[in-house]
Amino acid sequence: MTIKINSESEFHSATAANWELDKIVQELRNARNDWRSLRGRTREPGLRELPSRDLLQQIIRDLCGALFPMRLGPQELREESEDYYVGHTLDAALNQLLQQVQLELFYVARQQGNNGHDLALKAQANSIVRTFAAALPNLRRILDVDIQAAYQGDPAARSVDEVLLCYPGVLAIIHHRLAHTLYQLDVPLLARIVAELAHSLTGIDIHPGAEIGSGFFIDHGTGVVIGETAVIGERVRIYQAVTLGAKTFPTDEKGHLQKGLPRHPIVEDDVVIYAGATVLGRITIGKGSIIGGNVWLTRSVQAGSSITQASSRNLVPQEANL
Amino acid sequence: MTIKINSESEFHSATAANWELDKIVQELRNARNDWRSLRGRTREPGLRELPSRDLLQQIIRDLCGALFPMRLGPQELREESEDYYVGHTLDAALNQLLQQVQLELFYVARQQGNNGHDLALKAQANSIVRTFAAALPNLRRILDVDIQAAYQGDPAARSVDEVLLCYPGVLAIIHHRLAHTLYQLDVPLLARIVAELAHSLTGIDIHPGAEIGSGFFIDHGTGVVIGETAVIGERVRIYQAVTLGAKTFPTDEKGHLQKGLPRHPIVEDDVVIYAGATVLGRITIGKGSIIGGNVWLTRSVQAGSSITQASSRNLVPQEANL
Amino acid sequence: MTIKINSESEFHSATAANWELDKIVQELRNARNDWRSLRGRTREPGLRELPSRDLLQQIIRDLCGALFPMRLGPQELREESEDYYVGHTLDAALNQLLQQVQLELFYVARQQGNNGHDLALKAQANSIVRTFAAALPNLRRILDVDIQAAYQGDPAARSVDEVLLCYPGVLAIIHHRLAHTLYQLDVPLLARIVAELAHSLTGIDIHPGAEIGSGFFIDHGTGVVIGETAVIGERVRIYQAVTLGAKTFPTDEKGHLQKGLPRHPIVEDDVVIYAGATVLGRITIGKGSIIGGNVWLTRSVQAGSSITQASSRNLVPQEANL
Amino acid sequence: MTIKINSESEFHSATAANWELDKIVQELRNARNDWRSLRGRTREPGLRELPSRDLLQQIIRDLCGALFPMRLGPQELREESEDYYVGHTLDAALNQLLQQVQLELFYVARQQGNNGHDLALKAQANSIVRTFAAALPNLRRILDVDIQAAYQGDPAARSVDEVLLCYPGVLAIIHHRLAHTLYQLDVPLLARIVAELAHSLTGIDIHPGAEIGSGFFIDHGTGVVIGETAVIGERVRIYQAVTLGAKTFPTDEKGHLQKGLPRHPIVEDDVVIYAGATVLGRITIGKGSIIGGNVWLTRSVQAGSSITQASSRNLVPQEANL
Amino acid sequence: MTIKINSESEFHSATAANWELDKIVQELRNARNDWRSLRGRTREPGLRELPSRDLLQQIIRDLCGALFPMRLGPQELREESEDYYVGHTLDAALNQLLQQVQLELFYVARQQGNNGHDLALKAQANSIVRTFAAALPNLRRILDVDIQAAYQGDPAARSVDEVLLCYPGVLAIIHHRLAHTLYQLDVPLLARIVAELAHSLTGIDIHPGAEIGSGFFIDHGTGVVIGETAVIGERVRIYQAVTLGAKTFPTDEKGHLQKGLPRHPIVEDDVVIYAGATVLGRITIGKGSIIGGNVWLTRSVQAGSSITQASSRNLVPQEANL
Amino acid sequence: MTIKINSESEFHSATAANWELDKIVQELRNARNDWRSLRGRTREPGLRELPSRDLLQQIIRDLCGALFPMRLGPQELREESEDYYVGHTLDAALNQLLQQVQLELFYVARQQGNNGHDLALKAQANSIVRTFAAALPNLRRILDVDIQAAYQGDPAARSVDEVLLCYPGVLAIIHHRLAHTLYQLDVPLLARIVAELAHSLTGIDIHPGAEIGSGFFIDHGTGVVIGETAVIGERVRIYQAVTLGAKTFPTDEKGHLQKGLPRHPIVEDDVVIYAGATVLGRITIGKGSIIGGNVWLTRSVQAGSSITQASSRNLVPQEANL
Repeated sequence: MTIKINSESEFHSATAANWELDKIVQELRNARNDWRSLRGRTREPGLRELPSRDLLQQIIRDLCGALFPMRLGPQELREESEDYYVGHTLDAALNQLLQQVQLELFYVARQQGNNGHDLALKAQANSIVRTFAAALPNLRRILDVDIQAAYQGDPAARSVDEVLLCYPGVLAIIHHRLAHTLYQLDVPLLARIVAELAHSLTGIDIHPGAEIGSGFFIDHGTGVVIGETAVIGERVRIYQAVTLGAKTFPTDEKGHLQKGLPRHPIVEDDVVIYAGATVLGRITIGKGSIIGGNVWLTRSVQAGSSITQASSRNLVPQEANL
Repeated sequence: MTIKINSESEFHSATAANWELDKIVQELRNARNDWRSLRGRTREPGLRELPSRDLLQQIIRDLCGALFPMRLGPQELREESEDYYVGHTLDAALNQLLQQVQLELFYVARQQGNNGHDLALKAQANSIVRTFAAALPNLRRILDVDIQAAYQGDPAARSVDEVLLCYPGVLAIIHHRLAHTLYQLDVPLLARIVAELAHSLTGIDIHPGAEIGSGFFIDHGTGVVIGETAVIGERVRIYQAVTLGAKTFPTDEKGHLQKGLPRHPIVEDDVVIYAGATVLGRITIGKGSIIGGNVWLTRSVQAGSSITQASSRNLVPQEANL
Repeated sequence: MTIKINSESEFHSATAANWELDKIVQELRNARNDWRSLRGRTREPGLRELPSRDLLQQIIRDLCGALFPMRLGPQELREESEDYYVGHTLDAALNQLLQQVQLELFYVARQQGNNGHDLALKAQANSIVRTFAAALPNLRRILDVDIQAAYQGDPAARSVDEVLLCYPGVLAIIHHRLAHTLYQLDVPLLARIVAELAHSLTGIDIHPGAEIGSGFFIDHGTGVVIGETAVIGERVRIYQAVTLGAKTFPTDEKGHLQKGLPRHPIVEDDVVIYAGATVLGRITIGKGSIIGGNVWLTRSVQAGSSITQASSRNLVPQEANL
Repeated sequence: MTIKINSESEFHSATAANWELDKIVQELRNARNDWRSLRGRTREPGLRELPSRDLLQQIIRDLCGALFPMRLGPQELREESEDYYVGHTLDAALNQLLQQVQLELFYVARQQGNNGHDLALKAQANSIVRTFAAALPNLRRILDVDIQAAYQGDPAARSVDEVLLCYPGVLAIIHHRLAHTLYQLDVPLLARIVAELAHSLTGIDIHPGAEIGSGFFIDHGTGVVIGETAVIGERVRIYQAVTLGAKTFPTDEKGHLQKGLPRHPIVEDDVVIYAGATVLGRITIGKGSIIGGNVWLTRSVQAGSSITQASSRNLVPQEANL
Repeated sequence: MTIKINSESEFHSATAANWELDKIVQELRNARNDWRSLRGRTREPGLRELPSRDLLQQIIRDLCGALFPMRLGPQELREESEDYYVGHTLDAALNQLLQQVQLELFYVARQQGNNGHDLALKAQANSIVRTFAAALPNLRRILDVDIQAAYQGDPAARSVDEVLLCYPGVLAIIHHRLAHTLYQLDVPLLARIVAELAHSLTGIDIHPGAEIGSGFFIDHGTGVVIGETAVIGERVRIYQAVTLGAKTFPTDEKGHLQKGLPRHPIVEDDVVIYAGATVLGRITIGKGSIIGGNVWLTRSVQAGSSITQASSRNLVPQEANL
Repeated sequence: MTIKINSESEFHSATAANWELDKIVQELRNARNDWRSLRGRTREPGLRELPSRDLLQQIIRDLCGALFPMRLGPQELREESEDYYVGHTLDAALNQLLQQVQLELFYVARQQGNNGHDLALKAQANSIVRTFAAALPNLRRILDVDIQAAYQGDPAARSVDEVLLCYPGVLAIIHHRLAHTLYQLDVPLLARIVAELAHSLTGIDIHPGAEIGSGFFIDHGTGVVIGETAVIGERVRIYQAVTLGAKTFPTDEKGHLQKGLPRHPIVEDDVVIYAGATVLGRITIGKGSIIGGNVWLTRSVQAGSSITQASSRNLVPQEANL
């Protein structure tokens, strides 16, 4: 057997990699510079600009352990050392969170042309993390109610512990309550990253701005979307692929999108929404209503209603030409 | 340039983090204690109570390598050392699994007020893992049929190897067959965790109790939900966002949910169900039927049926007021 | 207290694990051998056959850092060292990619009975990676347009940086543009793995063969499916659970699936498709059309159309008996 | 250019590795079996027999952090969380240590033909670790004295903190005091492993049996050897390459080595021994003596002596024919 | 077989670990507080006080890679990306070093009662690291001369590359030249930690203050000690267990050790000192002298001398009563 | 409190690091280029030139596990899976070793101006690793004898297992026997790296060329040096700080060092050499001799001799003027 290589250059191209790195690095720099000058970012901060998804994932993981030490903490944890674990882990998570909060505050300041004096921002970051930390015990109590609701709502659930450990809906609501706390403390970028971590893990997409009462349960969950200004009462239960969305995006007279206006549904206490239902716009679903699977709903229903596909179509003639 | 800090305390709040850890740790302890006394968990086991999702993920990863060594095993594996790799990896996975099975058995025993004598439980755990291990070779053979079915069912597939490596439906069925084996061996919590690992990776949510024949293929898969008592025959093919769910939750005379009753569909051999179809209740889809996209189906159809949106509406007048 | 163990063997079964490894390893080998002989793989290559999902995940992560260093790169990156980071990270990613490309080329060659002479394949792999690398700067420029589109399309977005960091739709399009480049360079298996990485992270399933113009934005995204031969114009916007799929699989006269034929929709410039819409077959959605939520569409619509559920049903009577 | 490979087998030997693993694994098994049967180890315990050097290294590292949290603990530790860190780290270290103590106790029991009933051994292991843990606070106080002595004894030292962080002599005495505590608690194998960890890091070889008073300082240290039955008083200072060894090994009437007899020097309070001195046998160096560099000493010297090379030779004529 | 446990508490002590953590943590806190109040450290800084050995180890490892990229850098480095690797790695190392330098400067400031205003210290730290960085290219050139000297000095050496990769003497001099640069830049604690890293790896103990000319070579090296004020010329070669030490520690009139005075030997160009020689005090070994193995030398020798054990004894009668 | 920063540049120098990376990277490149052109290395290989110490450390660690699985293998190993562990670990180690052997062979070829045709070198590397692998079972048997000798030689040893786990002398001889095998297979650079790994861990410096009979034991060991051409018989025992060195380096008529000539001692069977003895030159220590502590010996002694400091001085008058 004889292997033929016809020329030395062919041999070298086969065995020695050469990527013309200098050229590519230069062109990538050009692309960055063009983008920056286009956006008026002529003076870069010199440091990476943005919080880190990976670090927030670690922070959330630590907070889950601190909130539920004997169930989501490390395998070898013993009850004697529970508080030490909680204190140590919490401290690590809060210190890391402080860095991320600072990054967001600095970033926002830079966007507003505010450079250099960052001591006040550091003080603000400290205050945010302190408030966040103080909120954790109550958040744990609310989550206990959520978990209890999940247990009671699913005939396949064997124990509250299984629910905590396995259910994507529970994972999503833990993330949401942490994200919503960050959102209320004016670090919406961190809040959004936490929400997207849950989205990636569970397929459940809850905007951190949504206000959700206790005893909330999502079953299965993949494809659920809940918008920024949605308001959800106590003991609400929803299933996979439910959308609580906006019907239209309000624009001002110049046609610019108007951000922050209420545009998602209000869902009152004890409502159940079955899989695949689509609920759009600033409508109200009255207390105790049941919304059937795959229903398409764009107007309010009063308390105690039971809406199915057929009936929903009668309700919403005006959507025929959306 | 002069930076102004108005007071020493302002300076310290800016530079020294202080989270009042003692207070938060104490309040978290109070929350845990309240929850425990509410649930009558006055005597804690002293050790972490529950299996670990992270460890099960590692176990499944190792089992995948042991089942398909030259394709899902380590990059540097050579055929000469295949059996050594399989034996060593299997041993590591089974030893880890033994720990997790013990945790579930101990947990269940504690739930039933059964403390202290754990030697019998350890023997039971050993027996479970031994049975699980013995089932693996046959499971590999069934998976080969599933993979072949996936290859034949998708015009975009170039080889059985691509299918094994890339297709989320294949990843889901590997997880399901492992989870279902654990479910049959009476460790439903571990089974559920394995199912949720697949759900998180693929968006496909198959309850580990579901019985699924060989040659099963899910294409795309995101949003598929298959319930606990579903029974699926040979060579069935389903697409994304298909639900095989329960129509109602049976309750006993006191209104308590009755767990474990058959409440999900029976899908016979060679059925195809297209994307977005919703099939609810203990109905039977006869052999060889085709269920069209987005169909909503709550009553049985005979063998060889072809159901589309239009025809399905005619079939189910009684669902109008769900 | 006295613990009773009734026999020595009971004691040993409780404390010493024994999995009968030799038997299981042998049976797994039998299963592999049966499978191999069934498929005519009598002469194995001696080395692991296939590219690695884990390594491709790392490669993509590195490429994201090299493309957006100050935003997706390491937390501690400073502007002074930006180019060093880009060059070093790119080099690592490309060298790793070279290994993976070689694996795919070798694999394909083996499938075709072509063993032994791999120098030409190595040269081909080098050429592929060189071309891929050279395409990166332009790809960055296109992604900047996508990100700008995402920012403008979502009223909840606060900055282009939030969009880059958080939005699953942006993550999906970054993966897709890398995967599509690999697809065009004739390494479809690598391309598919990259696509499935995005699918797992985001619930968005875009076949790497799909051709997508710039300024493309997917909001929320879970459940989106875009098929292999889909063609999408400039500035198209789609929402969660939209399917751009095939209606039927063309078969040849012998009933074999015909691979590679155009079978997915053409979506022209400036089209918007709302959540849950299903668009099937080689149809064309004309420039600037709006397709409403949950619409089921299987025939072409002309430019500027606005299709809703009601109107769509009128459009497609022929699909009644799919 | 043409590459010539003369035969296919030559080509394969160049590109495909083959180690004849089966043969080597079998021969290694034979070697193990021969060794086991030679030593009468016909019934193996089924599990790895011995404690782990790597795990003990981690345990010692954690104990160092718990003893000196703000100086040897993690970089990001803050004073507020000091106790949480100490409690959590201590717990991790002690739980790990418990496993290692059990391994040594089981191992010794097996050596004595004692199989099966290990509950009493587990209780003993618990008791050992509890006693060890209770000794730590006093051990920290003694180490503070050692560190102070090191600081005062070296003109190059700038602070007690530098001494703790840098000096190999301090590292060695920390290890020794932990190892000696284990030695006294009858787990001599663990003790020895800890001593050898220090030996590897510092070149200082102190047998864990040696009794050493407080305020002990070794400068530079490489090559220091201190034997099992050495007794060292308060405030002793020694330099590199000093040996406190045995002169002869006592044997019984049958010529077997007699283990455990006092055979190493007694060094009284405030003695200084300069570099390279060799002190052999159960002799006593009186309080406050100074032993010069490279001195060879095999008989006792009274308190306050100052021994140099010349004078030492006069002292020890009987060693001429050792 | 029946296992007997005589009491419930015995059973629990066997199976449930309990370390009385609260008590030990409290006692350790007491020990720390006593130590702190004894040393007047009533106001702790709130953060870990000291640089980290582990981080410096990583920094040195990175600097070695940046200095000798194709020989000590990563295995997969290619020449095309050499500069990118060097720049990126250097940047990482320098940024890390900056943190460590700040820690030392803050620490020293606190020791001197200087709290609060750390901006000037941060500027000083920046300046130190900048100077350190600028010194690296020249340091590489000097190390090339050292390596060449090692190659020429050892008959067993096969290439300069083997020398760089294997010789502990080379590892030690690389560390020393980095440590000495830090020492000159007034961060002696960092310098000392780097020196001790080398000591631990090689058994060679060179104080970072020692001044050493180029072409320096230590063979074997274990047990070598070189003191703080030693001055060594060009092309000096020394062997294992050589000491260049102080004879006495000068004290002031109050008996306090006087730090920083010249007290170690001056070794002129081209001197060779064989294994085990002990050279003490501020003496001068003249250019080109040879000091034999195990020689004990405490007075100066003129250029070109050749000293052996016998002759050295004649030289030093006055040391008889050290 | 007001913090004063006098100028903006002072503020920036305090908060923004800038290392002038471009300049330093360029100067380092100049230094490398100068060095390369000085050494005639005008055409670099394009890839890292040399084997890796870190990878060899991992290889040795794996080989130790494969040789002594139940004692140096992983903690969780069970006897049932011993062979699988051994085979899998051995395979990993040998594959890694193959890469390292190739690197050394390529390196040597390049040094000799031999570029391009590396297939023959790959075949040679394979052959070397195969031979190395085949030698392992016998090597295990010899090490069993060494360990038995260590156990019998130390009165403080409690078991052969303690000896294997703790004794640096045993660690050194394991490394040496592996290194010597590599040395005999003509990969002296790898052999040397393995020897230096042992040197770093134990302070024992054995050149891989030294020939050492079975039943060899080094006690304590720090400072032991054994040269390249030393020949040591069966059952020899030596203590810390013993040197078996060369007296002079033979040079040829041009004054160049002559490499490879026998220049170190021959030590016959059953010799004991106590701590600190220095034995130099190609002399022979006759069978069964005892060499006392600190003896300096440069001429042969006959079998059965007992040499002490005093007697050794009489033996060697000619060394007075070394």
